[in-house]
Amino acid sequence: MENFDLIIIGAGPAGLTAGIYAKRSGLNTLILEEKLAGGEAGVTPLVENYPGFEAISGPELIERMVKHCRKFGAQINELEPVVSLDLEGKKRFVRTEKTDYNAPAIIIATGTRYRLLNIPGEKEFQGKGVSYCALCDGAFFKDKSVIVVGGGNSAAESARYLSSITSNIKLIHRKSQLRAEEAYLTYLKDQNVQFIWNTEVKQIKGGNTVKSVVLWNNKSKETSEMEIDGVFIQIGEVPITKIFERANIAIDERGYIIVDSRQRTNIPGVFAAGDVTNGPVKQIGTATGQAIVAATEAFGYIKRPYYYKEKD
Amino acid sequence: MENFDLIIIGAGPAGLTAGIYAKRSGLNTLILEEKLAGGEAGVTPLVENYPGFEAISGPELIERMVKHCRKFGAQINELEPVVSLDLEGKKRFVRTEKTDYNAPAIIIATGTRYRLLNIPGEKEFQGKGVSYCALCDGAFFKDKSVIVVGGGNSAAESARYLSSITSNIKLIHRKSQLRAEEAYLTYLKDQNVQFIWNTEVKQIKGGNTVKSVVLWNNKSKETSEMEIDGVFIQIGEVPITKIFERANIAIDERGYIIVDSRQRTNIPGVFAAGDVTNGPVKQIGTATGQAIVAATEAFGYIKRPYYYKEKD
Repeated sequence: MENFDLIIIGAGPAGLTAGIYAKRSGLNTLILEEKLAGGEAGVTPLVENYPGFEAISGPELIERMVKHCRKFGAQINELEPVVSLDLEGKKRFVRTEKTDYNAPAIIIATGTRYRLLNIPGEKEFQGKGVSYCALCDGAFFKDKSVIVVGGGNSAAESARYLSSITSNIKLIHRKSQLRAEEAYLTYLKDQNVQFIWNTEVKQIKGGNTVKSVVLWNNKSKETSEMEIDGVFIQIGEVPITKIFERANIAIDERGYIIVDSRQRTNIPGVFAAGDVTNGPVKQIGTATGQAIVAATEAFGYIKRPYYYKEKD
Repeated sequence: MENFDLIIIGAGPAGLTAGIYAKRSGLNTLILEEKLAGGEAGVTPLVENYPGFEAISGPELIERMVKHCRKFGAQINELEPVVSLDLEGKKRFVRTEKTDYNAPAIIIATGTRYRLLNIPGEKEFQGKGVSYCALCDGAFFKDKSVIVVGGGNSAAESARYLSSITSNIKLIHRKSQLRAEEAYLTYLKDQNVQFIWNTEVKQIKGGNTVKSVVLWNNKSKETSEMEIDGVFIQIGEVPITKIFERANIAIDERGYIIVDSRQRTNIPGVFAAGDVTNGPVKQIGTATGQAIVAATEAFGYIKRPYYYKEKD
């Protein structure tokens, strides 16, 4: 059993930022990450809207945040998944695959993972033409024909990234307009990305690898089949909250952790920040902002400085 | 009368970030700034806690944000103070010292200005030994004796900055401990900054320039006088909200603009972000996070995309 002042679960932009602030305020801080630091931001090809960087790759931005966090001495344990928690005593216990930890305060910053289409062929062809990460897998599709499924910033950013790898890209969206920032639309049109509106992917077919997709137009109600080499699915995210729900953390109807304006969950001393929360906007710059609040509040909760107000 | 989609008032980190996001989403955006871009961040000597930059000067960080904002085409009008507003019609009117503008949505990001001690001698010796900005005025005090008044991060950061200019620094705080991050305390002790606790400055005296301060110990109730060349006052901020209050924007008992988790004020279509709001933490990284939400919400309010929800 190792003791800390603060345990942060997740090492994406929110977890790393909380680590920077917690250590700067003098808290003995552990960050636990089930994979490698970075979260979803770490596999984003290009970030053009984190204030201060006109253009930076997700991995580079994350590397800067990891160095920033380590500079102030936060301990980051990668590849150490949390398996269970007990959050309701004065000491909070966190059990990982390796050992047990405790701390008086916790910040949850586990973010989200990719949402699945849940259609026939999707699981079967994962890694064989079906991908959820253009940065990870795009290079396998040089000059091949690919579709990107989705209409938000992630889908648009994936299409943008893929446009430097292949010229044969179709963006398939179930609505008649993108949700993505307009800057993307202009750029994608310039890159000859084709837009297929009002269309849903109903099945992925192939042999050893993907060969085609079955499409359904939700306006004309017509079904068609399209030959394709790769399917990049970017239809949103699902918050990673199962272990917290089991530990009695309150979540909303979509599965996000409910926080107040001070990033407090329903359990005093347990805070949450970033994409895992019910915050209205999911961006790197909102995750870091929330994490600053969470770390500042965790410090107040633990150390009770004279200016700390328990109530609003 | 010039028409825009969105008018942002203030060009500190919040205003500039809102500009980046607003332009990327396709909004024709004007930023009005009464002074030069930067706000309080722009005169911060060293920023070590904006995630992604281990250490960067405030002016350099602001320069990066200004370039970032201009890259996407936001118009930034510096040295153009707003004199009055009419926010309650469908078109919002903004009158500056130069001309009139209108837009369907407004983001308030005017931040704060320095709080005064309001003691005898303070106004008289402004620019003659009394300063509110170490970065602006520190160089005048090479090897002189200075005091920094205050106990938060701004006071600590000013003392840190001044410690490279002079070795004779006293930090005077009315409490018995700093509110600043512990990282500062350790550093300042290493730099031989002296701490004078439980002490209030009651008067500033001098001739052509500052010569001494009258101090009052609020524990021992003793009054003393200390010879000094410079007084750096860093006792907090006052939000810049007078013109908004006159335009019926709701403010809290300390003068900050009341916003909800979507950065909405009491008037639909009018948003606020950054230090001017009642957000719980005032940092560059929280101002930018709030601005991302404000710009995203302003876009939703103006363009009403399919996913926009007017109610929570």
